Amino acid sequence: MTVTSDVHQTIRQLREEVCRLHAELTRYQLVVWTAGNVSARVPGADAMVIKPSGVGYDDLTPENMVVTDLAGRVLEGDLAPSSDTAAQAYVYRHLPHVGGVVHTHSTYATAWAARAEPIPCVLTMMADEFGGDIPVGPFALIGDDSIGRGIVDTLRGSPSPAVLMQNHGVFAIGADARAAVKAAVMCEDVARTTHIARQLGDPRALTPEQVERLHDRYQSAYGQ
Amino acid sequence: MTVTSDVHQTIRQLREEVCRLHAELTRYQLVVWTAGNVSARVPGADAMVIKPSGVGYDDLTPENMVVTDLAGRVLEGDLAPSSDTAAQAYVYRHLPHVGGVVHTHSTYATAWAARAEPIPCVLTMMADEFGGDIPVGPFALIGDDSIGRGIVDTLRGSPSPAVLMQNHGVFAIGADARAAVKAAVMCEDVARTTHIARQLGDPRALTPEQVERLHDRYQSAYGQ
Amino acid sequence: MTVTSDVHQTIRQLREEVCRLHAELTRYQLVVWTAGNVSARVPGADAMVIKPSGVGYDDLTPENMVVTDLAGRVLEGDLAPSSDTAAQAYVYRHLPHVGGVVHTHSTYATAWAARAEPIPCVLTMMADEFGGDIPVGPFALIGDDSIGRGIVDTLRGSPSPAVLMQNHGVFAIGADARAAVKAAVMCEDVARTTHIARQLGDPRALTPEQVERLHDRYQSAYGQ
Amino acid sequence: MTVTSDVHQTIRQLREEVCRLHAELTRYQLVVWTAGNVSARVPGADAMVIKPSGVGYDDLTPENMVVTDLAGRVLEGDLAPSSDTAAQAYVYRHLPHVGGVVHTHSTYATAWAARAEPIPCVLTMMADEFGGDIPVGPFALIGDDSIGRGIVDTLRGSPSPAVLMQNHGVFAIGADARAAVKAAVMCEDVARTTHIARQLGDPRALTPEQVERLHDRYQSAYGQ
Repeated sequence: MTVTSDVHQTIRQLREEVCRLHAELTRYQLVVWTAGNVSARVPGADAMVIKPSGVGYDDLTPENMVVTDLAGRVLEGDLAPSSDTAAQAYVYRHLPHVGGVVHTHSTYATAWAARAEPIPCVLTMMADEFGGDIPVGPFALIGDDSIGRGIVDTLRGSPSPAVLMQNHGVFAIGADARAAVKAAVMCEDVARTTHIARQLGDPRALTPEQVERLHDRYQSAYGQ
Repeated sequence: MTVTSDVHQTIRQLREEVCRLHAELTRYQLVVWTAGNVSARVPGADAMVIKPSGVGYDDLTPENMVVTDLAGRVLEGDLAPSSDTAAQAYVYRHLPHVGGVVHTHSTYATAWAARAEPIPCVLTMMADEFGGDIPVGPFALIGDDSIGRGIVDTLRGSPSPAVLMQNHGVFAIGADARAAVKAAVMCEDVARTTHIARQLGDPRALTPEQVERLHDRYQSAYGQ
Repeated sequence: MTVTSDVHQTIRQLREEVCRLHAELTRYQLVVWTAGNVSARVPGADAMVIKPSGVGYDDLTPENMVVTDLAGRVLEGDLAPSSDTAAQAYVYRHLPHVGGVVHTHSTYATAWAARAEPIPCVLTMMADEFGGDIPVGPFALIGDDSIGRGIVDTLRGSPSPAVLMQNHGVFAIGADARAAVKAAVMCEDVARTTHIARQLGDPRALTPEQVERLHDRYQSAYGQ
Repeated sequence: MTVTSDVHQTIRQLREEVCRLHAELTRYQLVVWTAGNVSARVPGADAMVIKPSGVGYDDLTPENMVVTDLAGRVLEGDLAPSSDTAAQAYVYRHLPHVGGVVHTHSTYATAWAARAEPIPCVLTMMADEFGGDIPVGPFALIGDDSIGRGIVDTLRGSPSPAVLMQNHGVFAIGADARAAVKAAVMCEDVARTTHIARQLGDPRALTPEQVERLHDRYQSAYGQ
């Protein structure tokens, strides 16, 4: 990789952003101890910035974030990168529009994942953000490309920015790291509300047309 | 709108109050990310103060609150107002006693909304604040007057200051913004307790007479 | 009431303690908005210190606590006392060993109360603190002695320092205000754990002998 | 016990670490009031450092931690040690590889314990940390070696660092106090996720081979 001074500057900013975004995972109680992480692609370079492995959220600093190439090899950093680096690097290699990836074992979403059951789209907020059901990816063991391939195969062509990996947890993607964190936060929120709705009966269905209209509007008109 | 200096002073105070009240939404975990908002009518003017769209709760300031007229057109502010502005403006236009509106997707209340099931009044605290069941409004798509009309049609003539919009979430009203926030907080609390009560059996019913006595007393005798 | 200088000093300390103990109600999420309160008997006087009505927990100070006699009439204070003053005064009048009373609508305990179902003693921690099931008191409307009488009739002769008032919430008692707060905190904790245990099956029963041995030991040997 | 100056230094550090680790119990809401504790073995001495009995988490300091020998007799400290001292001392006497013990009544794990039902290993994170189901230990009364013996008999030869003592709560062990706290945190997290997964159906099973591969990899390759 040819590292230009622009890329150095970008990496410095991404170290800060990736570090800071982990505070959203703890704020919304999506993670315990050290079990969840955020990464960001470095635009203009074959590289990503990711959390170091097994380090507590209070101990994260921009400086101890790890920079790897998209094969998962460390480019900068004294610590080993997240054990999810291979999976996230696979996503960046195969989905060029993705600029950020988040992994959590957030409680309600992981409960749906344990049953290998997609979260049905019965809430307007879910239609807005996910454009339909949140799909389930295959069971895959860590250690090779299985998890990355499962994420990419499930999300390619889906409007959903989140996938429930069976018996495992959530991977969320976005145009940048902040958008991926938002998807992870919303995923847990709709997983929880839908679970609770289902405990006492059947939620009303939304039609595919309703879901599509909500999704189209939200993706084009919401925010600033 | 003729803006007198009194109205300017009132708007300044309402910007502060509306901004500050959003902290109650996060304190009671009624909202995630940017998905919920508070507004206040400007007394003596055809105007309201509301949260800007898609801005995080940590980033709210009195200055970035948006002032619109009651058709939802921006009067003051550099940011676009909440995507719920049209619905809330409709409420102010049609319910003159309403001085504040709050919208959330709080978990338990939204779960009842997903099933289109009113929350039954089986708690004294619920009788106090809501005077009966919390009713369900119709499914309505964002983009025209449907949501506002659904809120108004459901709450007009009801003692309840909150409505569960089907598959969507909560709209709460009050004489001012603080009262609307209180209703939103209480709505989630009774939605949760009633849900949990129902999980293991049937709550004891309150009679209409008991509900009415509690409601009358609370509305006249509680507080300072 | 003859107010000696000793009693003045005691009241000053109790104002501070009662004010401070409300922070435990919010810390453990036993209350929302203004719906829960703590009181303490003034030893050596026909008086109690209690939260003012409808004041938010952030706004409590030792100075705005209200001192009433045990008929509930205000002795000191500019604010109206809690709407539960009559019930708590009744408890102090009829249970001389009680030095503190707490009232909450904490979620899980109130869910058992809504079904009028005692919480069964299936946890060692519950045997320690409550010495058996947490009993249910009658449905009672606010406004006369009904609530106070329901509390006293249910707890007199019971080892439990907490009662679930039907369709209403929890009243907890103790030798002092801190002990009553502890009972309210523990009541919600065992209500929640027992509820969750019951959701997926039947908890193992404890024998009356096991409960009694645990209770006797805890009451005599725990702490400093 | 011959206390060398090295051991004095070690005890000073362990007082700080044990005190500080209690903040993880409150951060993850594993404990209420004073009902949970951490201890650490003093390497090179027949001694342990443990929380004082009945003291609130805000009031813990390195100085008020209690040092006992492994029969539970106080060596240093003005306060009585935790009522769980005998059980934890028993663990240190019989499991020489254990350097830390944690006790909680965390909600979801204790709910499984109330039903005397092991937590089934249906999550990759659970396979990683626990290497299989989290087992249930016998019902045991406090006051003699019953609890300690139940913990040791259940965990000896098990890959799990946590045991659910029937009708009681969790005991977690580790090579040091921090590892034991991690096990207690993860125990509650997987207890909660698995409970919620089971509420709406049957989680997919993991095969023993999958569990073993995950456990082996995590124990050797995770972290720094």
